[in-house]
Amino acid sequence: MLQRTSTPIRVGDVVVGGNAPITVQSMTKTDTRDVEATVAQIERLTRAGCEIVRSAVPDMEAANALASIRARISIPIIADIHFDHRLALASIDAGVDGLRLNPGNIRRRTHLQKVVAMAKERQIPIRVGVNGGSMPADYRAGELEPERMVALAMEQIGMLEDMDFGLIKVSLKSSDVLTTIEAYRLIADRIPYPLHLGVTEAGPPSTGGIRNALGIGILLHMGIGDTIRVSISGDPLLEVDNGREILRSLGLAQSGPQLISCPTCGRTTLDVPGLATRLSEYLRDIRIPLRIAVMGCTVNGPGECRSADIGIAGGVDKVMMYRGGTFLRSIPTEQAFEALTQEIASLAAAGSNHVE
Amino acid sequence: MLQRTSTPIRVGDVVVGGNAPITVQSMTKTDTRDVEATVAQIERLTRAGCEIVRSAVPDMEAANALASIRARISIPIIADIHFDHRLALASIDAGVDGLRLNPGNIRRRTHLQKVVAMAKERQIPIRVGVNGGSMPADYRAGELEPERMVALAMEQIGMLEDMDFGLIKVSLKSSDVLTTIEAYRLIADRIPYPLHLGVTEAGPPSTGGIRNALGIGILLHMGIGDTIRVSISGDPLLEVDNGREILRSLGLAQSGPQLISCPTCGRTTLDVPGLATRLSEYLRDIRIPLRIAVMGCTVNGPGECRSADIGIAGGVDKVMMYRGGTFLRSIPTEQAFEALTQEIASLAAAGSNHVE
Repeated sequence: MLQRTSTPIRVGDVVVGGNAPITVQSMTKTDTRDVEATVAQIERLTRAGCEIVRSAVPDMEAANALASIRARISIPIIADIHFDHRLALASIDAGVDGLRLNPGNIRRRTHLQKVVAMAKERQIPIRVGVNGGSMPADYRAGELEPERMVALAMEQIGMLEDMDFGLIKVSLKSSDVLTTIEAYRLIADRIPYPLHLGVTEAGPPSTGGIRNALGIGILLHMGIGDTIRVSISGDPLLEVDNGREILRSLGLAQSGPQLISCPTCGRTTLDVPGLATRLSEYLRDIRIPLRIAVMGCTVNGPGECRSADIGIAGGVDKVMMYRGGTFLRSIPTEQAFEALTQEIASLAAAGSNHVE
Repeated sequence: MLQRTSTPIRVGDVVVGGNAPITVQSMTKTDTRDVEATVAQIERLTRAGCEIVRSAVPDMEAANALASIRARISIPIIADIHFDHRLALASIDAGVDGLRLNPGNIRRRTHLQKVVAMAKERQIPIRVGVNGGSMPADYRAGELEPERMVALAMEQIGMLEDMDFGLIKVSLKSSDVLTTIEAYRLIADRIPYPLHLGVTEAGPPSTGGIRNALGIGILLHMGIGDTIRVSISGDPLLEVDNGREILRSLGLAQSGPQLISCPTCGRTTLDVPGLATRLSEYLRDIRIPLRIAVMGCTVNGPGECRSADIGIAGGVDKVMMYRGGTFLRSIPTEQAFEALTQEIASLAAAGSNHVE
C-alpha cells in the first residue's frame, strides 16, 4: 500500500488527511429536531468508535437544534445541507464543525459567497460530494459514469476554489462498487484534498456491509482514502462497527479485541455461532488488543488457539482452553462462555498480554 | 483487472479456473452422517446460488453417507479429509467430485499413493489448503507468515506433482486479511493451478462478512482467484449470499436483482430498513436482472429512481413510484411494499426490461 497523501484539514479537533489515522464516520437517522434522540444516538455511535458524525438539516428548526446537540456530544458534527443557503448559515451559527454541501446546489452566487465567507472565517471545512444517482441525466451524456462524476466534482470544487476556499473534502459515491472505485481512483491524482470514501445506497445490512467493504476496502488497499462512512439501511451502529472492522482488518486502526471463530462443519461439537455472537457483544467494552479464538474441533482448533491470547477448541463433551498460547485445562462445554469471559476480564484488568 | 489465468480443472460438471466464471462454494454444517439434514442444507444452499459444496468426513460412517447424499443433490460435493487416508478412499468410492486433503497430513507415502492413484483414475481434483493458524509453530520460524504459508503449500503441491498428479486447486487461508491477500499474491505467479479464495475463522456474520469481502474482494480486483468460499460462524446461507454479492458487486457474476436503498437520515419519511429487508427476501426468487431503488426522501430519491427499473422515494404521507426510470404515480406509504412487489412480479413475468 502506497498511501496517497492529501492536504490535511480539521473537522473540529479531528484531523482528516495528511498522515492522520483514517477516521470512521456515520450519520444520525433520528429527526434532527429531536435533540434528545439525536444526542442519544450520537453517544451510542461514539462509544462504538464513531469519530465524526453528520446530521441532516432539512429546515431551520433542525439547524437551530444543532447548537443544543453539539453542546452535549464529544465528537465533531457536520451539517448536511441541500439547496438552501440559509440552513448552512444557521448551522455554522449553531457551531457545527463542518458542512456537507454542494456549491452547485446553491442557485445564487451571492448566497454561496456568504456561506463560503462564513465557513472561511470559522475555519470550517466543506465536503463536496457527488452522488452518482443524483447527477442530471443529460450531464455529459455519453461519457462513462466515473468520468462524469469526476467532472461534476471538479466543477463543484472549482466554485469553492474560485472563492479562494481550500478547506475541502471530497466524496464520489455511487451505489455501484466498481463505479465508486474508478471515480475515486480517477480523482485521486487530480486534487490535493482529503477523500471521504463510501458506497452509497448500498442496501440493508446483508448487502450494505459487503458492498461498502469492497468499495472502501479496495480503495484503502490502493492507498486512497482519508475518512470512511459505511452506508447501510439500518442501525447506524452497524455502519460504525463495519467501518472499524474494515480499518482493523486492513491494519489501519488501533486494534481492540479480535475474535477469530471457525465457520463450523460436520466435525463441530460446540455451538460456535452462539458463543461467538455472545462474545462479540461482550468484547464491545474491552479496549485492549486481544486475540480470542473460538474453534469447533481439534483439526484447526489447537493451532488457532496457540496463536491467540485466549482460545477454546471443542472436544467431546468438553472444550480445551488455552491461554497465552498454551493449553490451560479442559472445561465442560456448558461453562465455555463463563470461562472465556473470566479469562478475558482478568487479562483486561491486568492490561495487555498480547501474544503475536 | 488483469485476470490471472489458471489451468482449469473440473469438479464434477463445474469448471474451476481458466476462463470459467468464478464459482461460489460453501460447506455443510450438519453432521455429515445425517443424510436428511445434510441434503436439506445443500438444497437450500443450491437454491441460494451455491455451486460447489464441501462436507467434513470425520469417520467412516460419514464417508459412506456421501453416496446417499450425492445421489440426491444437484451440485458437486467435495469430501473434507484430515489425517486418515482410508476416509479419502471411501469418499472417492462414495462418488465425491473432489477432495480437500493435505498430502502432508497422510503419514505414509504408500497411503498417499493409493489416494492419488484413485483420484487420478476417477479424475477427481484435490485441493491443497494451507491454513495459517494450523502451521507448525517451528515451521520456517522467523520468516513472515505469508512466505511460510506459501512455502508449506509448495511442499504439499510438490508431493502431488511428484506422483504425477496435476488436478490441483490451492488455498492459502489466514484469519488475518492482509496475510491472506499477501499469501495468494505471492503464490499466484508460482503455480498454474486454480486458486480457491477465502479468509478463514473470520468470526460471526458481523465480522465474517466484512473480513471475507475484503480478502476475497481485494484479490479478485487484482485478478487473482477462481472460486470463493466466504467463512462465517453461522448459517451457511449467509456464506453463499455474501459470496454472490461479492461477485455481483465486482461485475463477476450474472446479476439477478440488485436492491439499492438509502441509509436514511433526518429527512427520511419512510421505513426504508424495514422495506429493504422485506424486499431483499422477496427478491430471492426473482431471477432476472432488475434494479430496485428504495429511497427515503426527495434529495437523492428521484435521481436513483430514474436509473432503476422500479423505484420509490418517500414524500410526506405518500411515496412517489417510478417505473422504467419515469415517474408513475404517488401511492400511500403503507401500500409501498405491495405496490413494489406487484410491479416487480409483472416485470419478472414479462421478462427483463432492464434499464441501464
